[in-house]
Amino acid sequence: MPDSALAVADKPIQFTPKTPIQYVYFFGGGTADGNGKMKDTLGGKGAGLHEMTRVGLPVPPGFTLQTEACREFMRGEISDNVTDQMLIALHRLEELQGQRFGAGDNPLLVSVRSGAKFSMPGMMDTILNLGLNDTSVESLARKTGKPRFAYDSYRRLIQMFGDVVLNIPKIKFEHIFDAAKLQIGTQQDTDLDVDALRGIIAEYRKLILHETGTQFPQDPYKQLFMARDAVFHSWENERAKAYRRINHIDDWLGTAVNVQAMVFGNLSEQSGTGVGFTRDPATGKREFYGEFLLNAQGEDVVSGSRTPVPITQLRDLMPTVYEQLRTLTQNMEEHYREMQDFEFTIQDGVLYMLQTRNGKRTGRAAVRIAMDMVAEGLISVDEAIFRVEPNQLYDFLVPRLDETQGAVEVLATGLPASPGAAVGQIAFSAEDAVRFREKGIMRSIILVRRETTPEDISGMEVAAGILTSRGGMTSHAAVVTRGMGKCCVAGAGSIQVDEEKGEMRVAGHLYHEGDWLSLDGTTGRVIAGQLPLVPAMPDDPDLVKFMTWVDSRRRLHIRANADIPRDAVQAIRFGAEGIGLCRTEHMFFDEDRLPYMQAMIMARNEHDRRAALESLLPMQREDFIGLFKAMGDLPVNIRLLDPPLHEFLPKREELMVEIARLEITDAESPELTSLRTTLERVEQLHEMNPMLGLRGCRLGIAYPEITEMQVRAIFEAAVEVKKTGAHPHLEIMVPLTCGIEEMRNQATAIRHFAKEIFAREHETVDYIVGTMIELPRAALLADQIALEAEFFSFGTNDLTQTVYGISRDDGNQFLPTYIKHGIFKQDPFAVLDQEGVGQIMKMATERGIRTRPNLKVGICGEHGGEPESVKFCHRLNMDYVSCSPFRLLTARLAAAQAALEDKLAAQGASSQEGTR
Amino acid sequence: MPDSALAVADKPIQFTPKTPIQYVYFFGGGTADGNGKMKDTLGGKGAGLHEMTRVGLPVPPGFTLQTEACREFMRGEISDNVTDQMLIALHRLEELQGQRFGAGDNPLLVSVRSGAKFSMPGMMDTILNLGLNDTSVESLARKTGKPRFAYDSYRRLIQMFGDVVLNIPKIKFEHIFDAAKLQIGTQQDTDLDVDALRGIIAEYRKLILHETGTQFPQDPYKQLFMARDAVFHSWENERAKAYRRINHIDDWLGTAVNVQAMVFGNLSEQSGTGVGFTRDPATGKREFYGEFLLNAQGEDVVSGSRTPVPITQLRDLMPTVYEQLRTLTQNMEEHYREMQDFEFTIQDGVLYMLQTRNGKRTGRAAVRIAMDMVAEGLISVDEAIFRVEPNQLYDFLVPRLDETQGAVEVLATGLPASPGAAVGQIAFSAEDAVRFREKGIMRSIILVRRETTPEDISGMEVAAGILTSRGGMTSHAAVVTRGMGKCCVAGAGSIQVDEEKGEMRVAGHLYHEGDWLSLDGTTGRVIAGQLPLVPAMPDDPDLVKFMTWVDSRRRLHIRANADIPRDAVQAIRFGAEGIGLCRTEHMFFDEDRLPYMQAMIMARNEHDRRAALESLLPMQREDFIGLFKAMGDLPVNIRLLDPPLHEFLPKREELMVEIARLEITDAESPELTSLRTTLERVEQLHEMNPMLGLRGCRLGIAYPEITEMQVRAIFEAAVEVKKTGAHPHLEIMVPLTCGIEEMRNQATAIRHFAKEIFAREHETVDYIVGTMIELPRAALLADQIALEAEFFSFGTNDLTQTVYGISRDDGNQFLPTYIKHGIFKQDPFAVLDQEGVGQIMKMATERGIRTRPNLKVGICGEHGGEPESVKFCHRLNMDYVSCSPFRLLTARLAAAQAALEDKLAAQGASSQEGTR
Repeated sequence: MPDSALAVADKPIQFTPKTPIQYVYFFGGGTADGNGKMKDTLGGKGAGLHEMTRVGLPVPPGFTLQTEACREFMRGEISDNVTDQMLIALHRLEELQGQRFGAGDNPLLVSVRSGAKFSMPGMMDTILNLGLNDTSVESLARKTGKPRFAYDSYRRLIQMFGDVVLNIPKIKFEHIFDAAKLQIGTQQDTDLDVDALRGIIAEYRKLILHETGTQFPQDPYKQLFMARDAVFHSWENERAKAYRRINHIDDWLGTAVNVQAMVFGNLSEQSGTGVGFTRDPATGKREFYGEFLLNAQGEDVVSGSRTPVPITQLRDLMPTVYEQLRTLTQNMEEHYREMQDFEFTIQDGVLYMLQTRNGKRTGRAAVRIAMDMVAEGLISVDEAIFRVEPNQLYDFLVPRLDETQGAVEVLATGLPASPGAAVGQIAFSAEDAVRFREKGIMRSIILVRRETTPEDISGMEVAAGILTSRGGMTSHAAVVTRGMGKCCVAGAGSIQVDEEKGEMRVAGHLYHEGDWLSLDGTTGRVIAGQLPLVPAMPDDPDLVKFMTWVDSRRRLHIRANADIPRDAVQAIRFGAEGIGLCRTEHMFFDEDRLPYMQAMIMARNEHDRRAALESLLPMQREDFIGLFKAMGDLPVNIRLLDPPLHEFLPKREELMVEIARLEITDAESPELTSLRTTLERVEQLHEMNPMLGLRGCRLGIAYPEITEMQVRAIFEAAVEVKKTGAHPHLEIMVPLTCGIEEMRNQATAIRHFAKEIFAREHETVDYIVGTMIELPRAALLADQIALEAEFFSFGTNDLTQTVYGISRDDGNQFLPTYIKHGIFKQDPFAVLDQEGVGQIMKMATERGIRTRPNLKVGICGEHGGEPESVKFCHRLNMDYVSCSPFRLLTARLAAAQAALEDKLAAQGASSQEGTR
Repeated sequence: MPDSALAVADKPIQFTPKTPIQYVYFFGGGTADGNGKMKDTLGGKGAGLHEMTRVGLPVPPGFTLQTEACREFMRGEISDNVTDQMLIALHRLEELQGQRFGAGDNPLLVSVRSGAKFSMPGMMDTILNLGLNDTSVESLARKTGKPRFAYDSYRRLIQMFGDVVLNIPKIKFEHIFDAAKLQIGTQQDTDLDVDALRGIIAEYRKLILHETGTQFPQDPYKQLFMARDAVFHSWENERAKAYRRINHIDDWLGTAVNVQAMVFGNLSEQSGTGVGFTRDPATGKREFYGEFLLNAQGEDVVSGSRTPVPITQLRDLMPTVYEQLRTLTQNMEEHYREMQDFEFTIQDGVLYMLQTRNGKRTGRAAVRIAMDMVAEGLISVDEAIFRVEPNQLYDFLVPRLDETQGAVEVLATGLPASPGAAVGQIAFSAEDAVRFREKGIMRSIILVRRETTPEDISGMEVAAGILTSRGGMTSHAAVVTRGMGKCCVAGAGSIQVDEEKGEMRVAGHLYHEGDWLSLDGTTGRVIAGQLPLVPAMPDDPDLVKFMTWVDSRRRLHIRANADIPRDAVQAIRFGAEGIGLCRTEHMFFDEDRLPYMQAMIMARNEHDRRAALESLLPMQREDFIGLFKAMGDLPVNIRLLDPPLHEFLPKREELMVEIARLEITDAESPELTSLRTTLERVEQLHEMNPMLGLRGCRLGIAYPEITEMQVRAIFEAAVEVKKTGAHPHLEIMVPLTCGIEEMRNQATAIRHFAKEIFAREHETVDYIVGTMIELPRAALLADQIALEAEFFSFGTNDLTQTVYGISRDDGNQFLPTYIKHGIFKQDPFAVLDQEGVGQIMKMATERGIRTRPNLKVGICGEHGGEPESVKFCHRLNMDYVSCSPFRLLTARLAAAQAALEDKLAAQGASSQEGTR
């Protein structure tokens, strides 16, 4: 095909289309065949170029070969018309530019770029400077008066062409290039003169001949068509296929190809290149913002070899161009009704716009821009709500490391488990952390552990940040710290923690207790030394106003997971409309309670167990009184004891080691007997898979006295608070049911003790009884369970574990591999798996409501604060989502967006109805 | 109500029914109002009595108050007609018997018994001797000439009435009774004379007056109606309600009440009582079989105070009665077309039949009887197939303890984990067991462990039986031994095993290595010493013929789970039509392979891992060659490596203890370094919940070289066997997928290596690639997975674990409580949970077949050999079930019954169609 095209190219163009298919869309000279909406046909980049041209931006002209050509190419039946139409368009481009393609005194050079409907960053290929050959490179040198520029452009073309089109490993070109630099004893590309570049070009051409058996094509048309086919091929390379599979992009969409006249920012001191934003992307302030480099190309900015200067300097250097740029980008902002991020090139004093698109920004900027644009009348409040991504609101909540004070040394990078920053001194155990804090030995503590367990809670509470060498995004450390709104870097595998010795080795350093560390939980970086912190401002006035808009739009109620009064107070501050999950076991990890809890567990009969529970009852009652007082009339959902009991006991292997040691060193020690007794009970409770063992309602059924104590504490507290004039609304939640019998057993007990206390106290409290839906069987039999349960709350952590058969504590062994290979699109513990877990949730909701139409349905797993998951819950028509206080802002915004998406869909549907 | 009835009772009966409802059904004098089919109305017992009367058996006459009366009673709206109809029936009974109810010279006495549609053994109450009072007791004494008999009957009435009707604790009556015996210095009830009994009666009456404030009712009608109401009440007692909940019996069914004339087997030397069978229930031999006691009541048989004699002796004592009994029961067998189990009483030379029903029998007897009855023309072959319960076929397979040689001492009772019996000497570790066997130190070994792990396999193989102190019916020990057809008692909690010391404590005894034990895996008993064994006879000619009938009826194919050639050979002997699951990892636990497996796991990079795998490849290939040769052209399903890798490594806590010891005793030991290295890797692989961790296809995806090695071994073996002229049919199974991406990843690898080997060897083998469906997500997304999978095999062990969120290794902590409280009807690891797990299996099957209509579907979990589960699989229209060789007979029979049930349902439907 390219060969026949060449035959044509030498003749004047005389062509009549045989078919009505338009393969080629031209843009330039103030008009464009396409527009911004034609992403299916022209791809994202192509549609953007056409739209920019259409609205009058000075875009280097060119044309787009549409995606149908790619589809034909994949089927092996590309039409002759494709080539014909390209030649026509190329001719038109020559006319418009007053240049000839790769020939004459003023040669036309073009770029060839892929551009699919959906952005596939880095997945496909680009070739620049097409049209250069042994002849036109001389013309270009003469025309520009810059032989070095011309030959370097030619060198780059051959290298890119060799790599992308001819599939010669890039490294072979680089070897030649490096050898040339070595020969003249430099490391700077710019030190290579014309002769050196000519030498490199000669070597490159030898390489191509040797690798492919043919010469680098001198014919510019041959270059163009080979480049086009290479772009089509790149749609089907393995990287691109994997990317599409992961992102669920249809393989048959194909890519468009954009052919565009080259412009150069490195031609003169009246040339340059830059990037900018119509508003400050960090603060959102409405001011022209950007930076540029004089006499430079985009590559120079990217490589960091020269430091760009603020765009305001352009005003002094080229005032006309600067004003033109300001006006143009301002117009684009009004056109797109969005803050723009743009790229431009100035070639000999002439401004070209290479790209303009909606600009990325920080959360703070997003809120500020959205609100300003509403004030400016540019967008509506509904639109403003979509201008902020829910997760961006974390920006308002976290302290940040101030890295402006000098270079920082990154020791290791782990998972960004809980955002924010922390700076403090290392402690290697929870007890140490508590002691250091209490005795004032350390002002700020970084708790460093291989991994954390519930026993570490008190240490985690006094720490400023947590660093673990093991565990994933939903490890104990990650989940608990996110709940606390506390910075955490988890699973930093290159750190070797020796808790016993009180040492940590990382990047060749040895750290001890008390050494300073800085953590960036937003990026996962572990940084040496003591960096300054920039504090959080959760009561930003912009945010407060923005959230009133948000709340007025959403239907879904948003609650918080909170276990203690202090959390409840914080939850209300962040806008919680109730507590969706109070994990009563968290009340037992306190130092003064753990002994009673352990006594309860160690008890060998009901009598001893009851005695221990009696001691716990008043403490738990006090906790509930605090909680109910804090929440006033808002609903409070309390989950009965859930975790495996051995979480409260010493670790089995530690006991075994201690016993083995004592047997050798002090066999008569009375401690040995006590340790052996403890070990015996720990052995009895030991489970192979505690996640699937004696926990949840299984505890309350096996030991009814536990349920009794908890229910008494709850209702005695509620009655007491009610007597002060408040009206607690309780939801008592039975965990881990897998069928109606468990639900009935526990609900009967709960109602029995409630009735007893109400009768004794001559006072009643509003309450309902329901269950977590966190096992597949509960979801499958939801219609039966709803006979007894007045509400469902999806525990999506456990539900994800059981639906997938993956322990969130252990998934780290293979989840990274899975995500790398695209087997999982994302971590199902971070983002709800709508296809599988969501499917069964939908089933459960529908079945539950069929049995009990007024069934209350919510979610209290970690997903309750993840935007896509919140939206899914909205679409399931749930009553509420519950998340950690720290995630409330995000959840509220996601819920509002979900409601507005409904509204838009309804409007879309009704406007379609109207047109029928 | 009873009071108004009493008023009527004194007058002659003059009554016309106001409504058409028949509450009372009379039986006696050769006719009966009801029949054997009216269980809804008359309850099971009532229907039986009516049927027996109808066919001419000498049943003591009486009447049945139907269940509608009970329902009215529960609603508090019992009709007056109930009492009226009872009085009419009672009058008719008086006429028939020539007696008057509780009055006159010849008083009529009756029993009152409950009897619901479904048998609820021991759940409801019975009262005997109703009609006795201070007057009639004298008449009875006179009439029989046996005052002691009369007063003892009266005493019993008052005691039963006080307990059942008046709710006075039974213990209070027993105190009085015991005091009376103490007074005359005896322990024998029979030593109490008339005066003593009168004294007791007086005390009883005082007790009743004291407890209830009223006298024991002298009016027989009052006794009757109060007893009736007590029976109705007993339907609603807690025991009965719980029983119904567990057995899914509707609370509103209600119970019937049977009122029947009393007969006494203890009136004379011409009286007696006995039980019998029409055929030998142990062997099935067609001979009259039973035992009886002269001059005795049923209670005397039950209490064991006298030893009954063989029924043949009755022939000599009362030849007429004996012949009558033989003929009657023979007639009943012909009438019911089933072997009968009957109870009879002889009162003064007159035979009465109290009950006859289908008799329970051993498995051997069931097969013999079914086949004999076909030969006798009594039943069809189809019927014969239903006469044997599938699980009864285990009788043919297991050795038994011979307990006829004297008293046995039961040391403990655990779970009957794997049936059969074993007698041997104790070994406390697998290595010891292997050594003792190899060196001939022990002839027969009982391996005693706290619990077993896959490392114990070789020890389990050489042991005759396994005893564990922990673990449930599906613990490792239980599952593996059932697979081996080897006796196992699991979870015998009262045994304390100290494996380190080589000791076991039980029931006050201390056992050491080498001591003798006998295990009964069928009952779970652990017996002291060395009992003789009765060997198994799996090739019984009756069984062989019966199984040909069975196989000709079933649709479902039956395969075996078999991992090594020896198992495959056994499977074929038991009728397997293929291998449904070959667990390739079992090939790695062999002593000579474990080091390579461990090297593979310990490898820190792909290179070292590949080297270890290269050593394993030829071994695994040899195993497959043996397997394929054994199976010939039958399908063989091979599962790729599944278990967590740390199963192959030393235990973490043992390493930690060993290191701690060496650190103190020999800190310079080179062993210490090696142990620390091992521990480091073990720590890396350590998982909180290994069941939900790095296992299944996750291994093959994380370490593709494992899949590669296994696939090479499989196909190289298959090609080699094919070259010998056989035609292996392979199914390569990917374990633990949760979505299509995993399936695609592994299927691509499998097909790739197969193709490579076929090309290299110039030979191909038939194979398909599929997956285990053992995670809820796989079931939910079965439609997608079937795009890549050519077959599904349900792994119901794991599926049950994840659907329920219960680890089968740990469920023992609460499953017994759950089953006791009726929260679970049965252990879901033993019997497939059709409601939950079955629901999702149905979903997966339907979705899979929608995608791929010729999808092959089977099951390979432990449930594949459980009859109800097999029938469920038949109804899901699966292609096959696969179970351990030992369960094949059972599965085959269950499959045949399922197919016949289909046939019957179709006949039922078509005959219904015909009547429309």
